[in-house]
Amino acid sequence: MAGFTGLGAEQQHRATYEYDIDHPECFASEDNGATPVEVVLVGLAGCLTAGIASVAQFRGIQLRSVTATIEGQMNVLGILGADPDIRNGFETITVRFAIDADATREELEALIAQAQKRSAVFDVVANPTKILVELA
Amino acid sequence: MAGFTGLGAEQQHRATYEYDIDHPECFASEDNGATPVEVVLVGLAGCLTAGIASVAQFRGIQLRSVTATIEGQMNVLGILGADPDIRNGFETITVRFAIDADATREELEALIAQAQKRSAVFDVVANPTKILVELA
Repeated sequence: MAGFTGLGAEQQHRATYEYDIDHPECFASEDNGATPVEVVLVGLAGCLTAGIASVAQFRGIQLRSVTATIEGQMNVLGILGADPDIRNGFETITVRFAIDADATREELEALIAQAQKRSAVFDVVANPTKILVELA
Repeated sequence: MAGFTGLGAEQQHRATYEYDIDHPECFASEDNGATPVEVVLVGLAGCLTAGIASVAQFRGIQLRSVTATIEGQMNVLGILGADPDIRNGFETITVRFAIDADATREELEALIAQAQKRSAVFDVVANPTKILVELA
């Protein structure tokens, strides 16, 4: 990931960020990285966590620590194409936040709800997105 | 990312894979990593590329190189919440593959189509997924 276009100009990251992706040994690969679906979960957890930090700052809530634990349930028969009624992707994803902050439980729940509402990756995963895959 | 449950047992990756995520300086952050939405694109490109390699092997197509170029179109007014009619996520995503292989253009297009059909991340992004976000 090197750059993007926005705010009226071509933008560059400070550096080109590289990520290794692989599949585990039980899928006949070498396990030299997280799997692609796990990388999507990393993006979702990162987006929601950044949102929590941002909304907390806006609301004057002092955060001491935020930890996201994320799980996706997937039926391997879908991936393998063994059962056409089972989808390829996640059946459900659960993100659980442990937050240490100067705030009530109600304030923290409202904080999480707002971060979810504003999260781009939550939107991408929760809703359908049009994807065009083509040969150059 | 450390492990997963599957094939009747708890599975562990060979190592725990860690990824840094951040937002760019024009979003008032420090740009110490790709953004969460870019990480999702990395997962999509990785999943489709792995699928192409896998289907090519199955079909006896010798690949010399596969390069994915991926772009997501996003209206920043959606992220900022400035216009409720504009979604937070990608409007469209385009993945373009340059492939050097011993195969005809028709064979390569069929290869890409099958990789798309079997891709878990394509399924996750193209279709709605239920996500539960909660406070521990």
